[in-house]
Amino acid sequence: MNPAGQGGTWDRPLWRSLLPIGRDERTGGYRRFSFTPEGQACRDWFLVAAAERGLFAEADQNGNLWAWWRPAAATDAEAGAIVTGSHLDSVPDGGGFDGPLGVASAFLAIDVLAERGLAPVRPIGVVAFAEEEGARFGTACLGSRLLTGAVTPDAALALADEEGVRLGDAMAAAGLSPQAIGADPLRVGRIALFVELHIEQGSALAGLGAAVGVGSSIWPHGRWRIDFTGRADHAGTTRLADRRDPMLAYAATVLEARVAAAELAALATFGKVVAIPGASNAIASAVHAWLDARAPDGGRLSALVDRVIGAAEQAAMEQGVQVSHRRESFSPLVKFDAALRGQVVAALRTMGLTAPELGTGAGHDAGVLAAAVPSAMLFVRNRTGVSHSPAEHAEPADCEAGVAALAAVLEEFACR
Amino acid sequence: MNPAGQGGTWDRPLWRSLLPIGRDERTGGYRRFSFTPEGQACRDWFLVAAAERGLFAEADQNGNLWAWWRPAAATDAEAGAIVTGSHLDSVPDGGGFDGPLGVASAFLAIDVLAERGLAPVRPIGVVAFAEEEGARFGTACLGSRLLTGAVTPDAALALADEEGVRLGDAMAAAGLSPQAIGADPLRVGRIALFVELHIEQGSALAGLGAAVGVGSSIWPHGRWRIDFTGRADHAGTTRLADRRDPMLAYAATVLEARVAAAELAALATFGKVVAIPGASNAIASAVHAWLDARAPDGGRLSALVDRVIGAAEQAAMEQGVQVSHRRESFSPLVKFDAALRGQVVAALRTMGLTAPELGTGAGHDAGVLAAAVPSAMLFVRNRTGVSHSPAEHAEPADCEAGVAALAAVLEEFACR
Repeated sequence: MNPAGQGGTWDRPLWRSLLPIGRDERTGGYRRFSFTPEGQACRDWFLVAAAERGLFAEADQNGNLWAWWRPAAATDAEAGAIVTGSHLDSVPDGGGFDGPLGVASAFLAIDVLAERGLAPVRPIGVVAFAEEEGARFGTACLGSRLLTGAVTPDAALALADEEGVRLGDAMAAAGLSPQAIGADPLRVGRIALFVELHIEQGSALAGLGAAVGVGSSIWPHGRWRIDFTGRADHAGTTRLADRRDPMLAYAATVLEARVAAAELAALATFGKVVAIPGASNAIASAVHAWLDARAPDGGRLSALVDRVIGAAEQAAMEQGVQVSHRRESFSPLVKFDAALRGQVVAALRTMGLTAPELGTGAGHDAGVLAAAVPSAMLFVRNRTGVSHSPAEHAEPADCEAGVAALAAVLEEFACR
Repeated sequence: MNPAGQGGTWDRPLWRSLLPIGRDERTGGYRRFSFTPEGQACRDWFLVAAAERGLFAEADQNGNLWAWWRPAAATDAEAGAIVTGSHLDSVPDGGGFDGPLGVASAFLAIDVLAERGLAPVRPIGVVAFAEEEGARFGTACLGSRLLTGAVTPDAALALADEEGVRLGDAMAAAGLSPQAIGADPLRVGRIALFVELHIEQGSALAGLGAAVGVGSSIWPHGRWRIDFTGRADHAGTTRLADRRDPMLAYAATVLEARVAAAELAALATFGKVVAIPGASNAIASAVHAWLDARAPDGGRLSALVDRVIGAAEQAAMEQGVQVSHRRESFSPLVKFDAALRGQVVAALRTMGLTAPELGTGAGHDAGVLAAAVPSAMLFVRNRTGVSHSPAEHAEPADCEAGVAALAAVLEEFACR
């Protein structure tokens, strides 16, 4: 099951031209990491899409790409802008829709306006934010966080990928200038509204029978690294009583995290674990683990993380191993502005679209932007309910509904 | 703590020249993998050590190295040979003594005989078996198993390392000819006795206050790969009830393996685990795990593995994931010949050495050879009791006692 598989490809040339980039033909999954050849191919695709529409394209100092449709009579070319877009990077072996659907739909919504003979009275911007997934450098929404100042240049420049390549070197290798990364209040200040269209990463819309939904909130969420340090020993000669096996403490923590998440109606996931040295006939000297935790509110998230860390400490004590932890990323609760949501819902209704409101546990650039500018989200129904997987899928008709909804929002806010 | 660290280096030029090869100066651990530059450097060290002693050195078709001290009047140059040695390869970040101590001690025991003016009446061979740890190709004791026919050439040539490099290609890249690998009954038939000296990989000798011990048995042991296959999903949007998370099934299996091992007075270890795709914000699609299991007898080993596999299947069912398993390697119980052990103990006693007998859970080339030729083992006290770790350490005085013990055995069996 993949974007070109069951259910058919979305039959749009713009979409077809993006499909092959970074695709694993065996799994149908994508590996589009920032500042890699695949990442650059995605950027080239963006620049071609902008050029085909006569939009003015530019990269900002944080690696984000922008394309502008300016009003004929604008004095300040970008002030009061209505910006839409998402990201092009993927998780490892991710689906084809998470991110790119929002960028492609932005260009296609502009086509809808142009075909209707509409022209913006405020600038319309299309944006592709860099490193949204954090798959290469470990910090989600890095491009939008740098733009808004939620991550400092120093913190960003200290990031390195798994091969030890630092962010600045990766950007420089991709032809960008990392010297000037950081907050850009002038650019942010010109944005009157940011609206991000994204595939739903669950099955709420499918259950409601709706092609498109409007985002109400993003759960607070974060990533914690937990390191268990024991002692390497021979698996065949070290008595159980003499062991300091960090794998046992890790395993107990994984199970307790699930129990705690269920009790708190929250989410906890260990999807990444690295055993050191990782030999089958040696007790590990260390186990590095990553907890992804999310909850409907900050109180429950704190309670969840406290429970998991407490379980890790208890299990580590029982096994005679050390444990340490640090928060690698955190995003507080985002509540999208209720008045703006009402306007978006009303705009969709004029198109005959009934769009229910829904919260999500997934972080998005719109959640980062919401701290600085009025922001909104549109979700497109996901047939499988699955995301971060090649099984992620949106039906062509639902993609079209998403474009129509986004065009209605752009018309409402930028053309009147 | 490392071979060159606390407690002092064993002050032997032969040992000093081996120490730097494949050493990680940060951890003090070794990475000496077969048919790599580090592996080749170890082979070169062997060839130099043989040449310095005027021994005839050769590589067999299975990548094992041999050095021969032939009697002056031998008609069949290698018949009735007394062979001693061990291996030079290491686990990842392993200690410096596991393997090399036996090879270096073999050369140094020959020096002892020569200094005493003794000459062999039967050939004395020094051997370094290839890929004993199985760290690169996954099959422990590969060199000795090929030699004795315990592994077939087809099975060996199907092995590949983690980068997908096949054994034959790795051997060819190291200048060897993989075309002729396989059982060599002629070579095996010329061996009258094989004795392997090895650092103890536990603390039994330390508890007994003995520098050297004699091996009585090797526990049956093996390695099982267990693959849990779930479904990749977004960590932030997939409800707990909708998940098929293989990490939870893995964690439950790790904990149950420890309980079962304790109940059976056996050993179970999960030291290697790989999560696929291994992204912190995605539920893993699969978790690959390796069980190392050992027990004093075959019945208890079977019971242990059945318990662990049963736990994996139960946990997999509860999480809605699939599980499969296969045995990657297996070594049955080895009991070293009691009469031979008595002769070895008696030979050591003539040197004033009291050597207690002890069993071990660690596999060794001597365990493989024991199926084909009379075999014995000498263990040298391990100060830390720790092995497969940079903390592994034998005191210089204990290393010297090992050389003296091995020289006594060679004198008894090869010079009378």
